[in-house]
Amino acid sequence: MQVFDIEKMKTFSTEKMKKVKMFDSEHMFCDLYCFESGQSQKTHLHEGEDKIYYVLEGEGLFRIGDEEICVRHGSATMAKAGVIHGVINQSRNRLVVLVFMAPKPVH
Amino acid sequence: MQVFDIEKMKTFSTEKMKKVKMFDSEHMFCDLYCFESGQSQKTHLHEGEDKIYYVLEGEGLFRIGDEEICVRHGSATMAKAGVIHGVINQSRNRLVVLVFMAPKPVH
Repeated sequence: MQVFDIEKMKTFSTEKMKKVKMFDSEHMFCDLYCFESGQSQKTHLHEGEDKIYYVLEGEGLFRIGDEEICVRHGSATMAKAGVIHGVINQSRNRLVVLVFMAPKPVH
Repeated sequence: MQVFDIEKMKTFSTEKMKKVKMFDSEHMFCDLYCFESGQSQKTHLHEGEDKIYYVLEGEGLFRIGDEEICVRHGSATMAKAGVIHGVINQSRNRLVVLVFMAPKPVH
Protein backbone atom coordinates (compact mmCIF):
# COMPACT_ATOMS: atom_id res chain seq x y z
CA MET A 1 0.00 0.00 0.00
CA GLN A 2 1.65 3.17 -1.22
CA VAL A 3 1.03 6.23 0.96
CA PHE A 4 2.58 9.52 -0.09
CA ASP A 5 3.01 12.45 2.26
CA ILE A 6 2.80 15.11 -0.39
CA GLU A 7 4.54 17.80 1.64
CA LYS A 8 7.67 15.65 1.52
CA MET A 9 7.45 15.10 -2.23
CA LYS A 10 7.47 18.71 -3.28
CA THR A 11 10.49 19.43 -5.47
CA PHE A 12 11.36 22.73 -7.11
CA SER A 13 13.85 23.76 -9.73
CA THR A 14 15.01 27.23 -10.67
CA GLU A 15 15.14 26.08 -14.31
CA LYS A 16 11.53 25.08 -14.88
CA MET A 17 8.43 23.70 -13.19
CA LYS A 18 8.97 20.21 -11.80
CA LYS A 19 6.69 17.22 -12.27
CA VAL A 20 6.91 14.63 -9.52
CA LYS A 21 5.43 11.24 -10.32
CA MET A 22 3.12 9.80 -7.67
CA PHE A 23 0.69 7.15 -8.91
CA ASP A 24 0.80 5.49 -12.27
CA SER A 25 -1.55 2.69 -13.22
CA GLU A 26 -3.10 1.13 -16.27
CA HIS A 27 -6.04 3.54 -16.08
CA MET A 28 -4.80 6.85 -14.74
CA PHE A 29 -1.88 8.72 -13.29
CA CYS A 30 -1.28 11.34 -10.65
CA ASP A 31 1.60 13.81 -10.60
CA LEU A 32 2.58 16.74 -8.43
CA TYR A 33 3.40 19.94 -10.35
CA CYS A 34 5.69 22.36 -8.50
CA PHE A 35 6.10 25.90 -9.86
CA GLU A 36 8.42 28.59 -8.63
CA SER A 37 7.17 32.15 -9.09
CA GLY A 38 7.00 32.95 -12.81
CA GLN A 39 7.13 29.34 -14.03
CA SER A 40 4.47 27.84 -16.25
CA GLN A 41 3.26 24.85 -18.17
CA LYS A 42 2.54 26.01 -21.70
CA THR A 43 -0.91 25.51 -23.16
CA HIS A 44 -1.29 22.15 -24.84
CA LEU A 45 -4.00 19.58 -25.33
CA HIS A 46 -4.53 15.86 -25.07
CA GLU A 47 -6.82 14.41 -27.69
CA GLY A 48 -8.19 11.63 -25.55
CA GLU A 49 -7.40 12.34 -21.91
CA ASP A 50 -9.11 14.39 -19.21
CA LYS A 51 -7.08 16.24 -16.57
CA ILE A 52 -8.18 17.38 -13.11
CA TYR A 53 -6.14 19.93 -11.16
CA TYR A 54 -6.31 20.42 -7.41
CA VAL A 55 -4.34 23.41 -6.10
CA LEU A 56 -2.52 22.43 -2.92
CA GLU A 57 -0.52 25.58 -2.32
CA GLY A 58 -0.44 29.09 -3.73
CA GLU A 59 -2.42 30.25 -6.72
CA GLY A 60 -2.11 29.89 -10.48
CA LEU A 61 -3.63 31.39 -13.58
CA PHE A 62 -5.26 28.44 -15.32
CA ARG A 63 -6.20 28.62 -18.96
CA ILE A 64 -8.75 26.06 -20.06
CA GLY A 65 -10.21 26.51 -23.52
CA ASP A 66 -10.96 30.21 -23.99
CA GLU A 67 -11.07 31.02 -20.29
CA GLU A 68 -8.39 32.14 -17.86
CA ILE A 69 -9.16 31.98 -14.16
CA CYS A 70 -7.01 32.36 -11.07
CA VAL A 71 -7.42 29.15 -9.05
CA ARG A 72 -6.31 29.24 -5.45
CA HIS A 73 -5.25 26.78 -2.77
CA GLY A 74 -8.15 24.49 -1.96
CA SER A 75 -9.86 24.70 -5.34
CA ALA A 76 -10.04 22.30 -8.27
CA THR A 77 -10.71 22.55 -11.98
CA MET A 78 -10.77 20.25 -15.01
CA ALA A 79 -9.64 20.25 -18.63
CA LYS A 80 -11.56 17.73 -20.68
CA ALA A 81 -10.03 15.80 -23.58
CA GLY A 82 -9.46 17.96 -26.65
CA VAL A 83 -9.51 21.26 -24.74
CA ILE A 84 -6.33 23.34 -24.58
CA HIS A 85 -5.04 24.00 -21.08
CA GLY A 86 -2.05 25.51 -19.33
CA VAL A 87 -0.95 27.07 -16.05
CA ILE A 88 1.19 30.06 -15.14
CA ASN A 89 2.32 30.98 -11.66
CA GLN A 90 2.06 34.75 -11.84
CA SER A 91 2.21 35.08 -8.07
CA ARG A 92 5.25 35.80 -5.93
CA ASN A 93 4.89 32.52 -4.08
CA ARG A 94 5.27 28.89 -5.01
CA LEU A 95 2.42 27.02 -6.66
CA VAL A 96 1.83 23.31 -6.03
CA VAL A 97 -0.85 21.37 -7.90
CA LEU A 98 -2.03 17.77 -7.78
CA VAL A 99 -2.78 16.57 -11.32
CA PHE A 100 -4.87 13.55 -12.24
CA MET A 101 -5.16 12.29 -15.79
CA ALA A 102 -7.21 9.49 -17.33
CA PRO A 103 -7.01 7.39 -19.32
CA LYS A 104 -3.27 7.05 -19.10
CA PRO A 105 -1.76 8.73 -22.18
CA VAL A 106 -0.07 6.51 -24.73
CA HIS A 107 3.20 8.00 -25.99
CA MET B 1 -14.58 26.39 -16.76
CA GLN B 2 -15.76 24.78 -13.55
CA VAL B 3 -13.82 25.80 -10.45
CA PHE B 4 -14.80 24.25 -7.14
CA ASP B 5 -13.79 25.73 -3.80
CA ILE B 6 -13.78 22.46 -1.92
CA GLU B 7 -14.14 23.99 1.53
CA LYS B 8 -17.57 25.21 0.44
CA MET B 9 -18.63 21.83 -0.91
CA LYS B 10 -18.13 19.84 2.27
CA THR B 11 -21.42 18.31 3.39
CA PHE B 12 -21.94 16.06 6.39
CA SER B 13 -24.79 13.89 7.56
CA THR B 14 -25.33 12.33 10.95
CA GLU B 15 -26.82 9.29 9.18
CA LYS B 16 -23.89 8.20 7.04
CA MET B 17 -20.84 9.43 5.15
CA LYS B 18 -21.73 11.84 2.36
CA LYS B 19 -20.47 11.71 -1.20
CA VAL B 20 -20.45 15.05 -2.99
CA LYS B 21 -20.10 14.91 -6.76
CA MET B 22 -17.52 17.24 -8.26
CA PHE B 23 -16.25 16.28 -11.71
CA ASP B 24 -17.77 13.64 -13.92
CA SER B 25 -16.53 12.99 -17.43
CA GLU B 26 -16.38 10.23 -19.97
CA HIS B 27 -13.05 9.05 -18.58
CA MET B 28 -13.02 9.65 -14.85
CA PHE B 29 -14.85 11.15 -11.93
CA CYS B 30 -13.98 13.03 -8.77
CA ASP B 31 -16.05 13.04 -5.58
CA LEU B 32 -15.62 14.47 -2.11
CA TYR B 33 -16.21 11.98 0.71
CA CYS B 34 -17.20 13.54 4.05
CA PHE B 35 -17.17 11.39 7.19
CA GLU B 36 -18.31 12.30 10.65
CA SER B 37 -16.46 10.59 13.49
CA GLY B 38 -17.24 6.86 13.42
CA GLN B 39 -18.58 6.79 9.85
CA SER B 40 -17.14 4.52 7.18
CA GLN B 41 -17.29 3.27 3.64
CA LYS B 42 -17.44 -0.51 3.77
CA THR B 43 -14.81 -2.52 1.97
CA HIS B 44 -15.75 -3.24 -1.62
CA LEU B 45 -13.98 -3.61 -4.93
CA HIS B 46 -14.28 -2.43 -8.51
CA GLU B 47 -13.28 -4.99 -11.09
CA GLY B 48 -12.02 -2.53 -13.64
CA GLU B 49 -11.48 0.84 -11.99
CA ASP B 50 -8.62 2.39 -10.04
CA LYS B 51 -9.27 4.78 -7.18
CA ILE B 52 -6.94 7.42 -5.73
CA TYR B 53 -7.65 8.98 -2.34
CA TYR B 54 -6.23 12.31 -1.17
CA VAL B 55 -6.96 13.14 2.47
CA LEU B 56 -7.91 16.81 2.77
CA GLU B 57 -8.85 16.95 6.43
CA GLY B 58 -8.53 14.67 9.45
CA GLU B 59 -7.31 11.09 9.31
CA GLY B 60 -8.83 7.77 8.30
CA LEU B 61 -8.01 4.10 8.60
CA PHE B 62 -7.73 2.94 5.00
CA ARG B 63 -7.91 -0.71 4.13
CA ILE B 64 -6.48 -1.62 0.74
CA GLY B 65 -6.08 -5.31 0.03
CA ASP B 66 -4.66 -6.96 3.15
CA GLU B 67 -3.25 -3.76 4.62
CA GLU B 68 -4.73 -1.19 6.97
CA ILE B 69 -2.94 2.11 7.34
CA CYS B 70 -3.91 5.38 8.99
CA VAL B 71 -3.68 8.06 6.30
CA ARG B 72 -3.58 11.66 7.45
CA HIS B 73 -4.33 15.08 6.04
CA GLY B 74 -1.93 15.81 3.19
CA SER B 75 -1.32 12.21 2.17
CA ALA B 76 -2.61 10.12 -0.72
CA THR B 77 -3.04 6.43 -1.44
CA MET B 78 -4.44 4.25 -4.22
CA ALA B 79 -6.58 1.14 -4.63
CA LYS B 80 -6.02 -0.51 -7.99
CA ALA B 81 -8.76 -2.30 -9.90
CA GLY B 82 -9.70 -5.64 -8.36
CA VAL B 83 -8.30 -4.80 -4.90
CA ILE B 84 -10.72 -4.48 -1.97
CA HIS B 85 -10.70 -1.14 -0.25
CA GLY B 86 -12.58 0.77 2.41
CA VAL B 87 -12.24 3.65 4.87
CA ILE B 88 -13.25 4.16 8.49
CA ASN B 89 -13.04 7.39 10.40
CA GLN B 90 -11.97 6.10 13.80
CA SER B 91 -10.88 9.55 14.93
CA ARG B 92 -12.88 12.06 16.95
CA ASN B 93 -12.76 14.60 14.17
CA ARG B 94 -14.24 14.86 10.72
CA LEU B 95 -12.54 13.20 7.77
CA VAL B 96 -12.67 14.69 4.26
CA VAL B 97 -11.21 12.86 1.28
CA LEU B 98 -10.92 13.71 -2.42
CA VAL B 99 -11.58 10.58 -4.48
CA PHE B 100 -10.63 10.08 -8.12
CA MET B 101 -11.73 7.06 -10.11
CA ALA B 102 -10.95 5.93 -13.65
CA PRO B 103 -12.22 4.71 -15.95
CA LYS B 104 -15.67 5.88 -15.10
CA PRO B 105 -17.61 2.90 -13.72
CA VAL B 106 -20.45 1.55 -15.81
CA HIS B 107 -23.51 0.73 -13.71
